[in-house]
Amino acid sequence: MAFAFTEINGGVTAPRGFRAAAVRCGIKGETKPGPDLALIVSDVPAVAAATFTTNRIKAAPVRVSASHVRSPEIRAVVVNSGNANACTGTTGIQSAKRMAKAVGQNGHWRERQTLVCSTGRIGRQLPIEKIEVAIPELFAGLDSQAGSAFARAIMTSDTFHKEIAIEFPVSGRTIRIGGAAKGAGMIDPNMATMLCFVTTDATIEKRELQRLFLHSVEQSFNCITVDGDMSTNDTAICLANGEAGVPTLTPDHQSYETFGEGLNFVTRNLARMIVEDGEGVSKFVEVHVKGAATYQDARKAAEAIANSNLLKCAWYGEDSNWGRIVAAVGYSSAKVREEMLDIFFDGVVAVEHGMASSTPPEKLKEILHNEKFTVTVDLHLGSAEYKVFTTDLTPEYVRLNMAE
Amino acid sequence: MAFAFTEINGGVTAPRGFRAAAVRCGIKGETKPGPDLALIVSDVPAVAAATFTTNRIKAAPVRVSASHVRSPEIRAVVVNSGNANACTGTTGIQSAKRMAKAVGQNGHWRERQTLVCSTGRIGRQLPIEKIEVAIPELFAGLDSQAGSAFARAIMTSDTFHKEIAIEFPVSGRTIRIGGAAKGAGMIDPNMATMLCFVTTDATIEKRELQRLFLHSVEQSFNCITVDGDMSTNDTAICLANGEAGVPTLTPDHQSYETFGEGLNFVTRNLARMIVEDGEGVSKFVEVHVKGAATYQDARKAAEAIANSNLLKCAWYGEDSNWGRIVAAVGYSSAKVREEMLDIFFDGVVAVEHGMASSTPPEKLKEILHNEKFTVTVDLHLGSAEYKVFTTDLTPEYVRLNMAE
Repeated sequence: MAFAFTEINGGVTAPRGFRAAAVRCGIKGETKPGPDLALIVSDVPAVAAATFTTNRIKAAPVRVSASHVRSPEIRAVVVNSGNANACTGTTGIQSAKRMAKAVGQNGHWRERQTLVCSTGRIGRQLPIEKIEVAIPELFAGLDSQAGSAFARAIMTSDTFHKEIAIEFPVSGRTIRIGGAAKGAGMIDPNMATMLCFVTTDATIEKRELQRLFLHSVEQSFNCITVDGDMSTNDTAICLANGEAGVPTLTPDHQSYETFGEGLNFVTRNLARMIVEDGEGVSKFVEVHVKGAATYQDARKAAEAIANSNLLKCAWYGEDSNWGRIVAAVGYSSAKVREEMLDIFFDGVVAVEHGMASSTPPEKLKEILHNEKFTVTVDLHLGSAEYKVFTTDLTPEYVRLNMAE
Repeated sequence: MAFAFTEINGGVTAPRGFRAAAVRCGIKGETKPGPDLALIVSDVPAVAAATFTTNRIKAAPVRVSASHVRSPEIRAVVVNSGNANACTGTTGIQSAKRMAKAVGQNGHWRERQTLVCSTGRIGRQLPIEKIEVAIPELFAGLDSQAGSAFARAIMTSDTFHKEIAIEFPVSGRTIRIGGAAKGAGMIDPNMATMLCFVTTDATIEKRELQRLFLHSVEQSFNCITVDGDMSTNDTAICLANGEAGVPTLTPDHQSYETFGEGLNFVTRNLARMIVEDGEGVSKFVEVHVKGAATYQDARKAAEAIANSNLLKCAWYGEDSNWGRIVAAVGYSSAKVREEMLDIFFDGVVAVEHGMASSTPPEKLKEILHNEKFTVTVDLHLGSAEYKVFTTDLTPEYVRLNMAE
């Protein structure tokens, strides 16, 4: 696929007609510096697509946003960090609704036209009064250059802010797509625990946007893993406001596919940044299972490898330890025939027909010494494949997650 | 259940008619001290029951023993540490058979009457000649007091040897049950990665022994987890040789149930020792999920909690962090209703109706400070329950597993 996207500055405010703002209203404790409340506003009504955690226990903002996103016209997304507003009962639902209502009152639109996200500690009531007091200040600060400020305000244990924006030409004009994301710990393939916000000035029907955006999320955030946990607050939202002035991107439009690839490009880059910011990790590993009998087999085998603590420890120790890869494939429940199994590190064969290859161990050690490498497992049973991005497991990871 | 078992010395050689021996034949590298080859012999033919790893990739000794165990009369079990004889192709199968054959030649019984186990690094051919040379020496050392020597020889990363023996009266005589186990890392609920050997001088039909022993393994080794990995070599074997002189334990025998409880007692104690020897761990946590709609739900929720890296890090940090417990229950796919959910630490309520209880955080902190505690989750949706034993995740665990 030879799509050329030009990277530009601006993050979520790069597309026309989007402004953002961030303030500190006092949700985060005094020991944690920086803003804790942020807002994206579209100057004109936008269509929205979204996908939420598949955890059966959903935070209050997830429940509220899942309802609000059905509105045909969305105007804003408000996000707080420092408190997840999860396990907070009916009071929590009321707080999430009050966040949306306060934004609507300031912006002169309906409560249902604002989406709400929260991230942080579970089980504490949101200090909703502090948020309500801060919202006029947020509106006063709205700025079409504030994409980075927004991306910074949604950080929790992230060590760097994550944003990207691209543009590409369509019929003499340009379409822009911008994105920001948050996430470092609790990353799981089945919807990485994270918040992701994508904006675009393309014109597209809500149904089409939902289809393309879900596909992008499936191919990006759902393919990353750091520790196999999944949160109560995962949310990915995409807003399209049409301010590029390009005709509606219907499936028969010549740039429809390009737009979909643009969404993929943005989400995959944000997902990569989340993996690279995995708490306390030192290695970034692409696990590629191919030759599987079925897609589900490829996925199960890849995820078993990517989530094996023993393997992740070995990678930290720069030990190829392919025996643990074989064991993980074996217990993944994917169909496997030992005597067909090949394993490669950065293309160098370590296992052939289920047994040690003649590659000298020093050669493998050299590859494992790199900060990034690829583990490829070829099952030779079919043509299905799956890729997942993961990390090593380090003493630093444990220390960072000892307490929240 | 009020069964009274008297603990006695002797491990696998405590039951009458069993002898054991251990030698160092040079399988383990020079940096790892101690014996690496061990043998249990029954002086008379014994009936055997066994269960093996459910990993689809099975080590050569697992394949060979799974075939041999079908023999009506078993005489010996031979075990090596330092090399798993896994991913070793047809040469590996030949080596496992040669181990059994060499034992049979020395003991004057058939190849199929010896079971074979290996544990250690995957992917290297077994130095079978060294083993064959050492087997006469093993036979010369056979001793009815060598249970502990056997338990020590099968250790790999274990920090202590694991054995137990009990006896109980039956019609004016006593039946004895002895056991030894090996395992510290790679412990998973779905058959802990470990070797377990149980001997008894009871008289019982092979079919009945298999039924009772499988039940014991299900209630013990399959309920422990340290890191969710499962090896290619897991094996649990039980031999019954009838040397107690007690009539056959048929299901209508008054001591049949007591004997089953005795097997449970032995396997649960060995399983507990394996968890307590989890590599580099500092906390031992019993996770008890009750009130589940189904047994599978209880099990899935308990295992999700027990395998959550984030929770295991929090326990290391002595942080109750019940939000992560709620998240784990939520993503386990067990049926859960947030507003029904209660969580307790050592019986002290932390979460009521899905929200923080009024228990002061210091009170919970105090419980988490203990080396052992119980996490109880009540889903209030039914009467199914499941218990699993797990540990915390520590920087030391990572360091120990950096290389093998």
